[in-house]
Amino acid sequence: MLDLDAIKQQLENELFERVVPFWLEHSRDLENGGFYNCLDRDGSVYDSTKHIWLQGRQTWMLSRLYQDVDQNEAWMTAAKSGMDFILKHAVTDEGRAYFSMNAEGEPIYMQRKIFSECFIIMALAQLSRISGDDKLMGKAKWMFEKVWTWSKDTSVLGRPKLAGQEPMRTLAIPMIMLNLIEELCGDDQKMRESFSAEIDACINLSLSHYDEASGRVYENVGLNGEVMGGYEGRILNPGHAIEAGWFMIHWGRTLGRDDLVQKAIKIIRNSHDLGWDKDHGGLFYFLDAEGYSPIQLEWSMKLWWPHTEALYAHLLAYRITGEEEDAERFQQVLDYTMSHFLDDKYNGWYGYCDQQGRVSHRFKGGPYKGFFHVPRALHFCLQELGR
Amino acid sequence: MLDLDAIKQQLENELFERVVPFWLEHSRDLENGGFYNCLDRDGSVYDSTKHIWLQGRQTWMLSRLYQDVDQNEAWMTAAKSGMDFILKHAVTDEGRAYFSMNAEGEPIYMQRKIFSECFIIMALAQLSRISGDDKLMGKAKWMFEKVWTWSKDTSVLGRPKLAGQEPMRTLAIPMIMLNLIEELCGDDQKMRESFSAEIDACINLSLSHYDEASGRVYENVGLNGEVMGGYEGRILNPGHAIEAGWFMIHWGRTLGRDDLVQKAIKIIRNSHDLGWDKDHGGLFYFLDAEGYSPIQLEWSMKLWWPHTEALYAHLLAYRITGEEEDAERFQQVLDYTMSHFLDDKYNGWYGYCDQQGRVSHRFKGGPYKGFFHVPRALHFCLQELGR
Repeated sequence: MLDLDAIKQQLENELFERVVPFWLEHSRDLENGGFYNCLDRDGSVYDSTKHIWLQGRQTWMLSRLYQDVDQNEAWMTAAKSGMDFILKHAVTDEGRAYFSMNAEGEPIYMQRKIFSECFIIMALAQLSRISGDDKLMGKAKWMFEKVWTWSKDTSVLGRPKLAGQEPMRTLAIPMIMLNLIEELCGDDQKMRESFSAEIDACINLSLSHYDEASGRVYENVGLNGEVMGGYEGRILNPGHAIEAGWFMIHWGRTLGRDDLVQKAIKIIRNSHDLGWDKDHGGLFYFLDAEGYSPIQLEWSMKLWWPHTEALYAHLLAYRITGEEEDAERFQQVLDYTMSHFLDDKYNGWYGYCDQQGRVSHRFKGGPYKGFFHVPRALHFCLQELGR
Repeated sequence: MLDLDAIKQQLENELFERVVPFWLEHSRDLENGGFYNCLDRDGSVYDSTKHIWLQGRQTWMLSRLYQDVDQNEAWMTAAKSGMDFILKHAVTDEGRAYFSMNAEGEPIYMQRKIFSECFIIMALAQLSRISGDDKLMGKAKWMFEKVWTWSKDTSVLGRPKLAGQEPMRTLAIPMIMLNLIEELCGDDQKMRESFSAEIDACINLSLSHYDEASGRVYENVGLNGEVMGGYEGRILNPGHAIEAGWFMIHWGRTLGRDDLVQKAIKIIRNSHDLGWDKDHGGLFYFLDAEGYSPIQLEWSMKLWWPHTEALYAHLLAYRITGEEEDAERFQQVLDYTMSHFLDDKYNGWYGYCDQQGRVSHRFKGGPYKGFFHVPRALHFCLQELGR
């Protein structure tokens, strides 16, 4: 049995006393706007590069907290500063967005992927809702149209198609689109209805990665969802699968599709059980479906984000099913998370542990870790616990 | 004091009884030509992708062993098969080369870098020497001209220059060019003289990464060799620095430049001492010059190749200086290497250990590990020991 009151208090304390203050105090660039995201253990800036995934994500998160928790002007101000930086520097006339920029907003690198754009669209939509600035929503819709087109064939972003590439689909695309449409629409049911074809398509594409017989979610599958050979075809990413699971639970609830909710809960349970390290605890970053060594050097590491995704996914599953097995998985992840990623001395959370659970990187923010997975999971868990 | 006879016997046994046989038996693709390089612990193929760095490297290595050790027809045959695959499939009309291809030779991916080309040129030159096929040397020279031009500004290969990129030079370029020119020329003194401007330029560029005051070799420096800020500016790669060290010793000996030899020995010694893990032994993969956590998730891992590079570099230094401190570093690396990367059961060497020295990946070959660093270091050590 979970002690939900104690858990709620613990998560509230983490979110509002230790995570939000760390990032608000240390990340804001008051000179150029936007956020530093390479923050060392104590919050000092160890590199002034601004990674655009994280500019968008932090802007979204602050706007979401403003809407859901507290109309805190400091959060609105910081979110607007993030969006000002993004709109001034990060988005091209074609609607593409850079991956990284220097502190002043000059571009360093553009990925041949759609994720920078996705996180900016989420931020635009959410900031539009809390600020009442309709231009931001207009921009979000304009960028979404483009991203939707690119998502169907990302080779248009510049990575050449070559004859030896086995045609494959990656889970990252339909799952981010599911989350993006959810965040773009918010509570606007009419807007959601206008996207019903896209939502159905992304649900079906996401589900096609799930092999019911084995319980595995394959990160990459063939064009018809078939299991492929080779190291790319066999790769499992338990944290990704669990995250996709709760994206689908959200849509299942919104659309009143209990079949989807039930399937998503199975995905979350199976991915947890396959991904959990029986020797040292924690969720592996990558696994190979057939038991080969994954080629990723970091496969056995324990990253913060699969654990924060699992925290929310298991709690959500438990609130739906009431079953003890979901409570147990939640408790297992909670125990691991609270005993590995927290830093009592400086606040903020660590992001990276080795297989045995030792902190391997002392920084609190880096090119892929900012103010996003930790506060999102804590906030969403608290929303569930508050209901 | 090193027991050079025992060491020689140990290295000979590894090279000719355990490493060469493993790769000759398991890597050859008798159907399509070339080599499988994704070999599991027991030599079975876990992915049929062919990585072109490794096709070039294995072709070069076999040709070099044929020349230096034994005119073994099996080695010649395998080398020719590698080159046939490369020339049939991997090189474009413009002299660019793919990074990876499927087993049949259809292209999967092309990097916006020059390394595939460099390893092919080495293979072309060496196979030309042992086979007497002058066309191969002609092709090597034709490709070298192109690679030399690209090496001065790799942005011509398709990675756009953007305003926020701090102008920087990376050690990888001048050091690979030094090795490439050495391998292109072989014993041809006239050819070496024709490259004297290029050789001088690459020596000076390589040395500009070395900060004598701190003893550090910075992987990336500013255009004038200045130390830069940020995580890219602070990164140290001890294995790379040690490898660059022995490339420079070779040129110092060839050119009769004792100053260069002495400086290169200092680089090797300092990079070893800075890169050695005092707690668990072994050379770190990456370090941050100012002690921040490197952003690379794999920074603390112990990879085979920094150790094989160090093995040869320290032995070479010891043979030149006769000083005990070089013998001690060699013995330290030898002990670590022999107790961590060998596999008595199936032969071949592991490539990846975690910080504590546990094998983290069971495979013997992968996208970046083939028949190259291990046999090159063993062979070059044996050449030194045989003198």
